[in-house]
Amino acid sequence: MADSAETDEAAAPPESGSRPGHARDIGFGDRIAGCVRRRRSQIVLGLDPDPARLWPEALELAGATEGSPAQRAGRAVAAHCRLVLDAAAEQCVAVKPQVACFERLGAPGWAALREVMEDAAQRGLVVIADAKRGDIDISARAYAQAFFGRTPTPFGDISGLGAHALTVNPLLGRDSLTPFIEAARERDAGLFVLARTSNPGAADIQDRELAEGGSVSAAIARMIDELGRPGVGGDGLSDVGAVTGATAPERMEALRELMPHAVWLLPGIGAQGASGRDLAPAFAPGPAGGLVSASRAIVYAHESAGAGAPAACARAEAARLRELVWGLYA
Amino acid sequence: MADSAETDEAAAPPESGSRPGHARDIGFGDRIAGCVRRRRSQIVLGLDPDPARLWPEALELAGATEGSPAQRAGRAVAAHCRLVLDAAAEQCVAVKPQVACFERLGAPGWAALREVMEDAAQRGLVVIADAKRGDIDISARAYAQAFFGRTPTPFGDISGLGAHALTVNPLLGRDSLTPFIEAARERDAGLFVLARTSNPGAADIQDRELAEGGSVSAAIARMIDELGRPGVGGDGLSDVGAVTGATAPERMEALRELMPHAVWLLPGIGAQGASGRDLAPAFAPGPAGGLVSASRAIVYAHESAGAGAPAACARAEAARLRELVWGLYA
Repeated sequence: MADSAETDEAAAPPESGSRPGHARDIGFGDRIAGCVRRRRSQIVLGLDPDPARLWPEALELAGATEGSPAQRAGRAVAAHCRLVLDAAAEQCVAVKPQVACFERLGAPGWAALREVMEDAAQRGLVVIADAKRGDIDISARAYAQAFFGRTPTPFGDISGLGAHALTVNPLLGRDSLTPFIEAARERDAGLFVLARTSNPGAADIQDRELAEGGSVSAAIARMIDELGRPGVGGDGLSDVGAVTGATAPERMEALRELMPHAVWLLPGIGAQGASGRDLAPAFAPGPAGGLVSASRAIVYAHESAGAGAPAACARAEAARLRELVWGLYA
Repeated sequence: MADSAETDEAAAPPESGSRPGHARDIGFGDRIAGCVRRRRSQIVLGLDPDPARLWPEALELAGATEGSPAQRAGRAVAAHCRLVLDAAAEQCVAVKPQVACFERLGAPGWAALREVMEDAAQRGLVVIADAKRGDIDISARAYAQAFFGRTPTPFGDISGLGAHALTVNPLLGRDSLTPFIEAARERDAGLFVLARTSNPGAADIQDRELAEGGSVSAAIARMIDELGRPGVGGDGLSDVGAVTGATAPERMEALRELMPHAVWLLPGIGAQGASGRDLAPAFAPGPAGGLVSASRAIVYAHESAGAGAPAACARAEAARLRELVWGLYA
């Protein structure tokens, strides 16, 4: 665990990595590039805990505690995530908690989410909150406060979750993204905007051809590129990234042309097993151009393997994916 | 408060309005039509509490309590919403908490959200959680559990928020909406899918013209209509509604043609003051075809008025909007 215990300034939580007077001029793009280099990993550990499918050790830890079902489930979920991080964190560059899976536990789930995010940040991981938020005006600013900032109240400021990055939905357009970008940029955090998802339903809206030419996803990609330009760092990566499914290679190439500076968050590689060549456009800007997310492939590796301790299997699968993806780039 | 104290079966929380064996065959469309008729109101009370701008009485109530800033702010926000409901609930048919404004307070905010939603349901209001969620697969199902359903855990089931309706984002397509629709339909709840928002950024994606003809919003509208067809009730309204900004009348007419059965949630009327004629397409399917949301116009009516108690001004403004909108339909 030497790797994860090391002091990793670039991935420190935004709270501790403030930039008074912007003296330290490193934005999210440079941060992520540095983290990928140092950790030699592009793997994003997805955490989407199902309370009915937690590792047995987590259940034992939480089973001995008291409280309401939601409180006990919240603690069990937090314990599970801690164990998964213990096992796999050092193979990964980032962690991506799926907010829905915490939110369904109510207030205790929200407390567990905060605990897991703080834990991951302390391990030197980039923390990407997968919330797919999208709203306008005061609501967008409120979400930005929830994930990046702080909320002033008469009782004192309330800290948000301190995310390093957040997934957002662009359907409401530029003015819905701007409050998120401003809040993120202020603290060297970043966004991953949904550009072209990998589910079948992506055909319903995202793949529609526009009268002006190109798809809806292409229009989103152009918007991502435009919004990210002021945030391009020395490594050529911007702070406005894209969620881009590993789909048809020609589509990925076209999207990469439209957003040459965007860090791509590639979900579902683990489960769906896209091949190396398919991913080449992701890594066009460098090794940090593509972050490959895997959750169930790692967390339930012991089930696929048919035997073995969850932690050992998770670590082995994360290590395998890490080498596989690193090899694709090199 | 006779109105809000009456037993209002159709708007009872889904928990108490279960339909064993579907014996009671009333879906969300019929529920909302009945509520609008009985309450003679199409006004949706928007609750987007800003902890720095709560009614003074709420601050006094919460100021005397102990706990962390977040806990005190959560209690103050809940107290504020209760006071607003006391003042304006009987003028309204529904309440629409903006989830972002609670979420930024962390776990105590989530607890406050649950409290406010339960309070509103007990007053006979239809509770529309304005969360604009959108995701796929297990994440979509987890959000559906959070807002409509329950989450099984080894420690017992955890109830979701018991929303009667939820706003959702359709960018990810049909398979992202289906888990929400299934969970909602199961309990006579409904959805409001973002179809055409009223912010300037709507031009960026939603207004783009498609090669096949029509805008992205029109494609979304067709999807809303298709998904809602199995949920059309006796009153001709479906359980898949639409968030449709009160924008250009010709656009509203075109969208209404594409989704003749959808209940429309119209945000921002209060602040922006769309005229009566503009809203005609909303009410084409009947008085419940358009639900008109107002939040700050009601909650901060005392500031616009320049004098008067917040509660009295809120009640008067809600009553004024109620008569105004009811008059538009008649």
